[in-house]
Amino acid sequence: MSSTAFMVNGFDVANAHKVEPHMQELIARRAKALGPSYKLFYEHPVHFVRAEGVYLYDADGTPYLDVYNNVPSVGHCHPRVIEAVNKQMTTLNSHTRYLNERILDYADDLLSTFPAEMSNVMFTCTGSESVDLAMRIARFHTKGTGFIVTRNAYHGITASVAEISPTMGPYVPVGQHVQMVEAPDAYRTEPGVDVGEAFAKDVERAINDLERHGIRFAGMIVDTVFSTDGLLPHPAGFLKKAVDVVHQRGGLFIADEVQPGFARLGDSMWGFQRHGILPDMAVMGKPMGNGLPIAAVVAKPELLAEFGNKVRYFNTFGGNSVCIAAAQAVLDVIRDEKLMENSKRMGEYILNGLREATESHPGVGDVRGAGLYLAVEFVKDKKTKERDGEFALRLVNALRENRVLISATGLGGNSLKIRPPLPFTKANSDEFIDIFKKTLEQIS
Amino acid sequence: MSSTAFMVNGFDVANAHKVEPHMQELIARRAKALGPSYKLFYEHPVHFVRAEGVYLYDADGTPYLDVYNNVPSVGHCHPRVIEAVNKQMTTLNSHTRYLNERILDYADDLLSTFPAEMSNVMFTCTGSESVDLAMRIARFHTKGTGFIVTRNAYHGITASVAEISPTMGPYVPVGQHVQMVEAPDAYRTEPGVDVGEAFAKDVERAINDLERHGIRFAGMIVDTVFSTDGLLPHPAGFLKKAVDVVHQRGGLFIADEVQPGFARLGDSMWGFQRHGILPDMAVMGKPMGNGLPIAAVVAKPELLAEFGNKVRYFNTFGGNSVCIAAAQAVLDVIRDEKLMENSKRMGEYILNGLREATESHPGVGDVRGAGLYLAVEFVKDKKTKERDGEFALRLVNALRENRVLISATGLGGNSLKIRPPLPFTKANSDEFIDIFKKTLEQIS
Repeated sequence: MSSTAFMVNGFDVANAHKVEPHMQELIARRAKALGPSYKLFYEHPVHFVRAEGVYLYDADGTPYLDVYNNVPSVGHCHPRVIEAVNKQMTTLNSHTRYLNERILDYADDLLSTFPAEMSNVMFTCTGSESVDLAMRIARFHTKGTGFIVTRNAYHGITASVAEISPTMGPYVPVGQHVQMVEAPDAYRTEPGVDVGEAFAKDVERAINDLERHGIRFAGMIVDTVFSTDGLLPHPAGFLKKAVDVVHQRGGLFIADEVQPGFARLGDSMWGFQRHGILPDMAVMGKPMGNGLPIAAVVAKPELLAEFGNKVRYFNTFGGNSVCIAAAQAVLDVIRDEKLMENSKRMGEYILNGLREATESHPGVGDVRGAGLYLAVEFVKDKKTKERDGEFALRLVNALRENRVLISATGLGGNSLKIRPPLPFTKANSDEFIDIFKKTLEQIS
Repeated sequence: MSSTAFMVNGFDVANAHKVEPHMQELIARRAKALGPSYKLFYEHPVHFVRAEGVYLYDADGTPYLDVYNNVPSVGHCHPRVIEAVNKQMTTLNSHTRYLNERILDYADDLLSTFPAEMSNVMFTCTGSESVDLAMRIARFHTKGTGFIVTRNAYHGITASVAEISPTMGPYVPVGQHVQMVEAPDAYRTEPGVDVGEAFAKDVERAINDLERHGIRFAGMIVDTVFSTDGLLPHPAGFLKKAVDVVHQRGGLFIADEVQPGFARLGDSMWGFQRHGILPDMAVMGKPMGNGLPIAAVVAKPELLAEFGNKVRYFNTFGGNSVCIAAAQAVLDVIRDEKLMENSKRMGEYILNGLREATESHPGVGDVRGAGLYLAVEFVKDKKTKERDGEFALRLVNALRENRVLISATGLGGNSLKIRPPLPFTKANSDEFIDIFKKTLEQIS
């Protein structure tokens, strides 16, 4: 099982004959109309027709507990998001070249969650578009082209962003102007070594290498919780030294908040805030509109001053009235339902439950997390820490058979990715831990 | 007035003090929160709070006739789109890694409007993402990097797509692997010269130039009605020879249908169909979901076979259930309300009305169109055909004061861009022609 050439937890269409007839039919229709790019999750795919809160329902009405989907972050089909979208759909859906107050109200509200220095926002439709735009701004501003990313980073799918996404595998070359650094992995750092210092040194080495190649340094971008590098939240603060190096060397630091942002990590609205740093830009997306396509770049205004005046940037659907209404509802719900506090409390509860459930298991190397974003890392040997992606994948597939949706991440795909919608209750958590225990016993 | 350094019909914030106090406040809030990239239309911006059918309403309830917006293509706030979106929002909004029938039903329906050879579709969120993806596929398939575009082409805003969009102006360099050709402009072609043959020759020259630079040819992409080159629909069929050259030389032809597609041109669902050609790929966007962010690449399956298996492409929001529901409603409405037929009939009616209204005007060089996509081209002298962008812009701004929304396009911004929602009635057309006549007299 490799996390590079093919995706973690992907269905192999060669096994289509093994699944139920109605799924076979849908799989054949997908292959015919959508082509081979469209991959399904699981050895035994799932077919959903309805969702509500933290459950998805298949055609037979069987509920599946959602411990995976971070896009419907305030819960599937949240009534306030539905109502906000419907109201806006019946009133006006337009672009940003006419004046409208709603986008300004939302922009102010969103920006109020950021440090005062980050006071401009530009709207796009996807995280990929936001990263692409942030890279354009960084290159325009620094006049450099060189970027630093972590070894298994994923930042998106435009041509430019795919070049800084090494996790895309061997057929998508990392750009020649891109240097990879090792992710700051506390579990794999020798005792006595400072995670942040080691990371900062590698970043410095990477900048030197860029410059040695005659490539001017533009900046570094990291997912502030290192999602595709295996989820690396601790110790909070470890990013500070590396970001200082980036700034000393004239580069910009871009915080990719597409996964950690919007209260996911429990102790802060944005992942970078846990590290006591001030990014030059932050990009966000997935949970922003609870499933409607809206994303953004938040930036220091001095970065946009020249870019905005010289480079025309108009995103037809970016900041459209309906997606803004959805995003406003999401922000309101996060606050009104205290979802950040819930993420922190339930995250700790699940973390404790998982530690208890796995402490005697020989294959569990580490259990870690921040808020409702947790990982259980499987290894073949606790001393060598050799990654056991095969076991993690067996567990993911066994959990699916037991009606719990989850996936795996990291180099080697050996860490369970636990990332439920934020209104996950204590009852939901108990249900998850119980099924997790039972399933782990089944396959161990 | 230049169409390059700054946008056609953009508001200059230095004039903010000249507008109404409530607009000044909104303009100041935009500058503070959104920064300088966000440009408004018109010398005197508009502020809308509601829309329905082919009218937008300002805060005082004053209606403006919409002769510009092609995104709400089946009409602003169409009840069937609202209902479809609301129904889906309350049921399920998920991604493509779980099985779902709705996306397959829509894919089949959309593909049924294409030639049988173009039988795969991939969903994205914006036209830019679709063009970016089509370029990635073309480069992967041909192993070339060189593209050909027209001199004032616009294809989108990702880093990679901005490189093939010369209309973005001097601060966004055209890629060094990109060759520009002159758009096939019948109005400016010497009598006796075949427009299509001249265009094909220039394309051949561009391929030779690419190869002489050691750049392998990947393909040519054109908006099939040449929107930003000034709207060039005639004579239908002129693209055939150039596309043949592209294919003979091993390149792919990508039809950019973002503007001409979805029945806009009246005589066909897709602009390329008017030219009797078979593209390798087509990209579409804007009107696809009547304002919700959904876009697509339709391709010959042989182009996706290797790309789809080797390159992971997953677009989180691409093909999400809610945007698919909106897109299905749009396709249903186009058929049920016979909007293609309406586009053809009303387009001809408006074309005749505009020709009659302008035949004695010394500044009108050409009036042309296909369906509900029309242009009135202004020149300083009918013999020299020198472009008169200044007059076109004055007319655009005067029409805005008379409550008609329109814009300008083309090199020099000297052609009125007339592009109303498709359910434009005879009464709407008469209203438009009457105001157009009156306004033209006012400023001439």
